[in-house]
Amino acid sequence: MTSVKGKTYDELNVGDAGVQTRTVTDADVVIFGGVTGDLNPAHTNEVYAAATPFEGRIAHGMLSAGYISAVLGMTLPGPGTIYLKQVLEFRAPVKIGDTITATVEVAEKMEKGRVKLSTTCTNQEGKAVVTREAIVLPPR
Amino acid sequence: MTSVKGKTYDELNVGDAGVQTRTVTDADVVIFGGVTGDLNPAHTNEVYAAATPFEGRIAHGMLSAGYISAVLGMTLPGPGTIYLKQVLEFRAPVKIGDTITATVEVAEKMEKGRVKLSTTCTNQEGKAVVTREAIVLPPR
Amino acid sequence: MTSVKGKTYDELNVGDAGVQTRTVTDADVVIFGGVTGDLNPAHTNEVYAAATPFEGRIAHGMLSAGYISAVLGMTLPGPGTIYLKQVLEFRAPVKIGDTITATVEVAEKMEKGRVKLSTTCTNQEGKAVVTREAIVLPPR
Amino acid sequence: MTSVKGKTYDELNVGDAGVQTRTVTDADVVIFGGVTGDLNPAHTNEVYAAATPFEGRIAHGMLSAGYISAVLGMTLPGPGTIYLKQVLEFRAPVKIGDTITATVEVAEKMEKGRVKLSTTCTNQEGKAVVTREAIVLPPR
Repeated sequence: MTSVKGKTYDELNVGDAGVQTRTVTDADVVIFGGVTGDLNPAHTNEVYAAATPFEGRIAHGMLSAGYISAVLGMTLPGPGTIYLKQVLEFRAPVKIGDTITATVEVAEKMEKGRVKLSTTCTNQEGKAVVTREAIVLPPR
Repeated sequence: MTSVKGKTYDELNVGDAGVQTRTVTDADVVIFGGVTGDLNPAHTNEVYAAATPFEGRIAHGMLSAGYISAVLGMTLPGPGTIYLKQVLEFRAPVKIGDTITATVEVAEKMEKGRVKLSTTCTNQEGKAVVTREAIVLPPR
Repeated sequence: MTSVKGKTYDELNVGDAGVQTRTVTDADVVIFGGVTGDLNPAHTNEVYAAATPFEGRIAHGMLSAGYISAVLGMTLPGPGTIYLKQVLEFRAPVKIGDTITATVEVAEKMEKGRVKLSTTCTNQEGKAVVTREAIVLPPR
Repeated sequence: MTSVKGKTYDELNVGDAGVQTRTVTDADVVIFGGVTGDLNPAHTNEVYAAATPFEGRIAHGMLSAGYISAVLGMTLPGPGTIYLKQVLEFRAPVKIGDTITATVEVAEKMEKGRVKLSTTCTNQEGKAVVTREAIVLPPR
């Protein structure tokens, strides 16, 4: 087996960051809805959604949260990280066709080997759509 | 169009609850990983995962979070709800084959029309795997 | 069980051909990326892809290769074929919305029961996007 | 937009390598079959497959090829790489449950800025299931 391991507590420094960028397509929303069961009409019913303040279907907030999880588990700290807590503030809608960048940055090295990470998703215009933080236990 | 609308602030009472139950299969993990980009080896590499404390592949924590989102958007409060904030504590791993129940319960009717919800996912043994709360703006 | 069997060496003649045609949608690219792990920004990030010479997201070359595999395994020679070798030249990009025809044609009946097949994918304008050949062992 | 760029010709050295490891589940085979149209009974019909020399359903060879593509496009050389050619030899079947590691290694720095890569997929026992090489044009 190839050894795959993320960064340890000692290897992490405040300000270290990792990112993932992805365009949200219709397919992403359909698939995410199916697999989570979140078939809320805001995501799946264009007639309904066109009459909302968002004027069209929007992506699931938890899809963007999943992008944060991807960075945490694959890049920073990376494989072996134990996810303890995530705080999410949904600040603006993600529309079909938006390109979302999830950024995870080391905010604080806490006691007991825990690390606080700033976690933000921004759209292609730089607007923050999801903000706040995570607490993780990096791999040993 | 069929009228679809969730419960308003006035229609909600502390203690009101909604649930969704779903079994997590290999397919759910493969699909969730693909759509979020979270292909962390804990989710996709059985050889790697067998050597972790979890002794096998586990599901994404955000998949369970998606189940919470499903209840919020479809049942309680339901369609028209604006998702403002979600706090998630990941308390125990979800394994392939586990059956997860997401429960959303009205915890507090806050000012400015906001509602605090207790949000919990439990597995088939009743063990809490994800806990904590959400803040939403129910439909008017 | 219904008997399903492809053409044997003796039943195949140089020039025999099989095809499959399929339109590539956003969903195909999202799904193929997820299942292979190939989330290369050329396939998943529209902002990035718009700035490349291809001026937008393109499909995975291996998706077209999968269409060739489909013809080999289902039509010519068909079920029971052992896939030994595939040479692929990627000649032009496949864009979202393109309709791709994979054509497999018997090019040479080799020794030891092997058959060389010409394998080509063309788009809706007749342009070759993937070319070259495969070697297979047809069913006995 | 976050800048994402793979390694250039000058940054690559013979022997540099990148890997991806993934366990092949039933879901991967179902999904890959659906998206490529390769519904060959060797992949989708357990009754048929149980009577073949492989004694059960096997994964698509092109799924493993997709893992190679993932390493090429995401890690080595990485984003911006133009895929010119791929030669695949299918050496052994991939069964449901196998864990496949795709390894891409720089074999030769060719003229005109092209690079030859050794591309191999091995299973959890170290057995080579797909071998041979690719030619790419790394990002400038």
